Amino acid sequence: MTSKKELRWEVGWSNGVQEAPERWVSASVPGAVQLDWARAEQWEDHTYGNNWRQYEWMEDKYWTYRARIPVPVIKEGERLIFVSKGIDYSFHVRVGGSIVWSQEGMFTPVEVDLSEHAGKRDGIALEIIIEPAPKLAGATGRSQAAHSCKPAVSYGWDWHPRLIPLGIWDETYLEVRAAEHIVSAEVRYELTDRLDAATLSLNVRLNADNCAPGELVWRLSDPEGVVMFEKTVSIMGKTVRTEASIENVRLWWPHDHGEQPLYTSEVYWDGSGHSVVHPQKIGFRRAKLIVHEGGWKEPSQFPKSRSLPPITMEINGRAIFCKGTNWVNPSIFPGTITSAYYRSLLALAKSANMNMLRIWGGGIVNKESFFEHCDAMGIMVWQEFPLACNLYPDTPEYLRVLSQEARSIVTRLRKHASVVMWCGGNELFNAWSKMTDQSLPLRLLNSICYEMDPQTPFLSTSPIEGMGHGHYMFRYRTGEDVMEAMPRASNTAYTEFGVPSPASIEQLKTFIPEEELFPPRPGTAWEDHHAFHALSPEMWLMQDQLDYYFGPYETLEQVVEYGQLLQSEGYKCIYEEARRQKPRCSMALNWCYNEPWPTAANNSIVMWPDKPKPAYYAVQASCRPLLASARIPKFVWNEGEWFEPELWVLNDAPVEAQGGRVEACLTIGSEEKVLLLAWDYDEIRPNANRRGPTARYLLPAADAERMTLELIVPGREELSSSYTLLYRAGGRPATSVSSALNFST
Amino acid sequence: MTSKKELRWEVGWSNGVQEAPERWVSASVPGAVQLDWARAEQWEDHTYGNNWRQYEWMEDKYWTYRARIPVPVIKEGERLIFVSKGIDYSFHVRVGGSIVWSQEGMFTPVEVDLSEHAGKRDGIALEIIIEPAPKLAGATGRSQAAHSCKPAVSYGWDWHPRLIPLGIWDETYLEVRAAEHIVSAEVRYELTDRLDAATLSLNVRLNADNCAPGELVWRLSDPEGVVMFEKTVSIMGKTVRTEASIENVRLWWPHDHGEQPLYTSEVYWDGSGHSVVHPQKIGFRRAKLIVHEGGWKEPSQFPKSRSLPPITMEINGRAIFCKGTNWVNPSIFPGTITSAYYRSLLALAKSANMNMLRIWGGGIVNKESFFEHCDAMGIMVWQEFPLACNLYPDTPEYLRVLSQEARSIVTRLRKHASVVMWCGGNELFNAWSKMTDQSLPLRLLNSICYEMDPQTPFLSTSPIEGMGHGHYMFRYRTGEDVMEAMPRASNTAYTEFGVPSPASIEQLKTFIPEEELFPPRPGTAWEDHHAFHALSPEMWLMQDQLDYYFGPYETLEQVVEYGQLLQSEGYKCIYEEARRQKPRCSMALNWCYNEPWPTAANNSIVMWPDKPKPAYYAVQASCRPLLASARIPKFVWNEGEWFEPELWVLNDAPVEAQGGRVEACLTIGSEEKVLLLAWDYDEIRPNANRRGPTARYLLPAADAERMTLELIVPGREELSSSYTLLYRAGGRPATSVSSALNFST
Repeated sequence: MTSKKELRWEVGWSNGVQEAPERWVSASVPGAVQLDWARAEQWEDHTYGNNWRQYEWMEDKYWTYRARIPVPVIKEGERLIFVSKGIDYSFHVRVGGSIVWSQEGMFTPVEVDLSEHAGKRDGIALEIIIEPAPKLAGATGRSQAAHSCKPAVSYGWDWHPRLIPLGIWDETYLEVRAAEHIVSAEVRYELTDRLDAATLSLNVRLNADNCAPGELVWRLSDPEGVVMFEKTVSIMGKTVRTEASIENVRLWWPHDHGEQPLYTSEVYWDGSGHSVVHPQKIGFRRAKLIVHEGGWKEPSQFPKSRSLPPITMEINGRAIFCKGTNWVNPSIFPGTITSAYYRSLLALAKSANMNMLRIWGGGIVNKESFFEHCDAMGIMVWQEFPLACNLYPDTPEYLRVLSQEARSIVTRLRKHASVVMWCGGNELFNAWSKMTDQSLPLRLLNSICYEMDPQTPFLSTSPIEGMGHGHYMFRYRTGEDVMEAMPRASNTAYTEFGVPSPASIEQLKTFIPEEELFPPRPGTAWEDHHAFHALSPEMWLMQDQLDYYFGPYETLEQVVEYGQLLQSEGYKCIYEEARRQKPRCSMALNWCYNEPWPTAANNSIVMWPDKPKPAYYAVQASCRPLLASARIPKFVWNEGEWFEPELWVLNDAPVEAQGGRVEACLTIGSEEKVLLLAWDYDEIRPNANRRGPTARYLLPAADAERMTLELIVPGREELSSSYTLLYRAGGRPATSVSSALNFST
Repeated sequence: MTSKKELRWEVGWSNGVQEAPERWVSASVPGAVQLDWARAEQWEDHTYGNNWRQYEWMEDKYWTYRARIPVPVIKEGERLIFVSKGIDYSFHVRVGGSIVWSQEGMFTPVEVDLSEHAGKRDGIALEIIIEPAPKLAGATGRSQAAHSCKPAVSYGWDWHPRLIPLGIWDETYLEVRAAEHIVSAEVRYELTDRLDAATLSLNVRLNADNCAPGELVWRLSDPEGVVMFEKTVSIMGKTVRTEASIENVRLWWPHDHGEQPLYTSEVYWDGSGHSVVHPQKIGFRRAKLIVHEGGWKEPSQFPKSRSLPPITMEINGRAIFCKGTNWVNPSIFPGTITSAYYRSLLALAKSANMNMLRIWGGGIVNKESFFEHCDAMGIMVWQEFPLACNLYPDTPEYLRVLSQEARSIVTRLRKHASVVMWCGGNELFNAWSKMTDQSLPLRLLNSICYEMDPQTPFLSTSPIEGMGHGHYMFRYRTGEDVMEAMPRASNTAYTEFGVPSPASIEQLKTFIPEEELFPPRPGTAWEDHHAFHALSPEMWLMQDQLDYYFGPYETLEQVVEYGQLLQSEGYKCIYEEARRQKPRCSMALNWCYNEPWPTAANNSIVMWPDKPKPAYYAVQASCRPLLASARIPKFVWNEGEWFEPELWVLNDAPVEAQGGRVEACLTIGSEEKVLLLAWDYDEIRPNANRRGPTARYLLPAADAERMTLELIVPGREELSSSYTLLYRAGGRPATSVSSALNFST
């Protein structure tokens, strides 16, 4: 048995590698130096008010962790290894005063053999010295991260304070191993074209060139634990390779398309002193990006350009409409994220009928448990490398670190069934980044993915041509609302789109001092938490839009209600419109799912740490595999206008939908509900929508400010939908025209 | 000294690898089996009439070359090597009856050590067995080439008969070498950011792991032959690496932007028995693809997609407008192409003011002398890999051969200053190919180019988004002519566009039997040579368009004159319009330059083998670095219409153009010349155009069918331009309305 030993750590700061800290405080590992220091100083929580500002100085310090290797720790024929799965960001490992390892990069695990230092009387000092956060000279904000593989988000984003975590951020321990042991055992597979059988290849690396003769045992069990085969393989040299085939493979599917059978491979070395089992879960699936149906018909004119690149995800030969979201770091301090926290957020995503998460390149590559949950839950992962909104350079120094980090990332993640796509990073081919297809970092990443995981699609960045990002507001700068704008869009994938809302009152009260709560205004904790001046002066509370649609508010309850209504109706519109545009469109991922700390207003639908907003439930409804849906021409309706919703049944499920009836009913304020139209539809083929008639109704006078369109499917209430719209009696104009005008500048 | 020995070859065919040919005929090496056989059979030239049809059976035979190794050939301490720089396509090398080497791929050179067979009494038999041309099962035409690296063009194209060459196609000989010798010696370099100094890296491979101690000599001479340094390097192991730096580097430029200084590196091994010098010419330059000026302003709307990919070629920090053409195989049998033939065609291209050649992926990768000429002449080369208009598969078998061939191609060509761009192949992202960014062959090629030549741009295919291919006719299927259509196009690069014309009468007479010469009609040698049914029934004579513009013709002279007029005026329009669209547009390459045999009608501007058409001179004029130019709204003008040419001065030169005057003069038929407008323009900055006024003139009645617009630059006649247009008195309609209507279906 390998035995793992936790260490007792302390941490302190100084102004140089050679300078010892003056003060040492107790450290939590994994964690972040900032949190250790704050705990020692008994600071209030960093999420409250403007407390985060206290942390700024820490990014420029040298932080040293220290621990003492206990005695005695190993026996004859054993090795003592220091293992860390992640240290953030540039660091040195010092043993007994000498630097034995230096590294840049938080995604490459560290192993240092400390055997020669084991068993010393009083133990020996083990130190990890963390260098100051990397900063590109002359740059400010996120572009300080443009020459490193440090996630850019911590340098400040429109929903993330500038607070750059440093320290040991993933599992870290001492391990006692047999002198000769397995370093890694990985299974890769190839499915037959018919997807009914697989050839598995085992690749084992040993730690020594000439291990004693012996035999490895390789066993594969099916999802119920029944052993499918057990092979013994003779050890010859430093690597062991062997193959095996299995028939009647049960395929892994996204949760809305099938089961998630996970097989288990186990490898162990019977003859060695420590019989350590190296397990691996395997979900068999084939992932491809294919051109959407009809895509090859374009372009049709001369001079003729290329057809659009493929972005329809095909799993096991089936085109899947990807409904999901953009995942951001769920904490400012990734070192504190636990498996249980990941599980909580992922279970919510699955429950919202989401089958894909885009892991945005501005943030971290998540810890192992994240992917284990996604494998088990049937959630597809689009994994980006840590590049976002910057011009990452062609220099050999950067390419060396990127290559190291990317290889570590692909080595760790390629075994996960859930990881169906690699992507170079976020918005790299736009004006604010200025990278191109010729940029060497992206050609490097494409090469590494081709070499190490060629069967998984690779996208240079998002968006590429055909795909769209944005908009990020209910009412566009052109003056039209999202319901007017979206039907005219014709993108192949909407991989970012947002509508902001304030957090709930309960949430706001946890981090905004009571005296600042109302009215919301710049210069308070509202601004610290991104309600003002986050990207533009109005973002993300969008007070101008609340004014425009609802008139001046009088209470905090109104602010929250108005904003959350816009967010819910806006997201419903975009998800459902994207689905209506199938098959040209095959993906709808909103910006963003979660948040790293409590924001006062944000595009997120889940508040920190894992509390759904009303929009979460709206999205959940719009992402049902089968539902009645309406294309509604606009948000604000006036007395005397023709109200003309277009009726649809949307079906993303892999099964035929039975026929039924949709009753479109309108309720204006407290007036009686009116049946606009009853539409009988026939059965609908799998993964296809049905476009129905347009109802038409002359809006009568009423004493009301809102109206509700309900689509009722009698006998199948689970398919029914509801939309809240604004109603204006007497054709009265927008309450706040001047604010609208200001807004369009 | 290494000594090369030519061999005396014979060739014959059989129906299997193991079956000996029944008849042997004398073979020319390099060449093609077809030509050897035709010579022995005393067939008439394959270019005449429909003679090419005689060759069809040959593609399915096994062809065996044989030669006898002469005795004695080597001394003690020497090695006898069989060297071939290219054998087309799948083949085996058999020595004394045993197969010693098998290979698929014509671009990977072969070396086989025959030392043990040398000195035998009567010599020993050396055989090269060529397999039948590769054909994808179930496919027809060009798609038979979709699983191999055999250039697709030979399987039949709209300007190339189906005639698939096979055989030894590049230099092939026996070589006697010292037992220990240099296998390869390559210099790579890096320029400083300021482009004023270079670090050179020498990488030498030796043939044995443990060569006798000794010293290599490395010498660099400047373009005048003055030695810049001479280094001796000790030999240790199988590879030798060393570096050197030079200052005040003189840069290589395209011919219209500067000089082509070529330095010479020489490496030799003083201590070895054979002091062989390994020379390499070096032209120092930096090539990049950059985004055009203003390109980052797009897209401006939400949902926002990516900005267009870069296609502006920057050499040594200067954006270059690329004017050039698409180069196709200058012979059906590439084995017959000589350095002198390459030089003749390339000198014509340079003389036509062309600075770039796109080496189209449907054809071969040219022999070494092609690139030596381009280096010396300052012609940039866009080199494609051998993929075109097919769905090349993701299979391991194909990827293995593609990898081998691509590595051989990059190894050979990356040392040439002229090779400024790699490209995956032709039109792979269009409906007729159905490859995408996810296709593994293209990801492999990107990876190989990144690994082996990262400083040279790589394009997946042409066109990619922003770029345009086509149209390939004077009058579009929409009914509008090229002058109407092109100003509305807004592509970043026009990398294919064509206007066809018949060959000259003199040329037509060389391959069309006299009785078939007039009138041109299907079913004759006109059709064999692509005047009819080449792609559509009218292509490429386009008799319908000749009728539409000129009415029925009565003589062969008229056919040729009409077609050549459309071609000349069409190409002038497109080249000059592309230049007017600078800087958004930065490239204009017509389809195509030359041809592999005499066509009766084709988009080419140079007839086989190297005879300019009138359009060649039109293109030459439109590609002058500095010229007066007119944007003319359409081709056919009627009495009583306002004639409204827009005046420009186009300047692609890297120097300021002095100011001057453009006099726009119109001559209708034999009427007197009229001055429409005199425009005085100021000096124009380097590489920039000047847009001038629009002249306006009410077209009077005249007894004429043509009119000529001349732009005269007094005192600088070399900048003057002239355009021939059609004039119709009395506003008479097109002569052939019904043909126009048919055409638009």
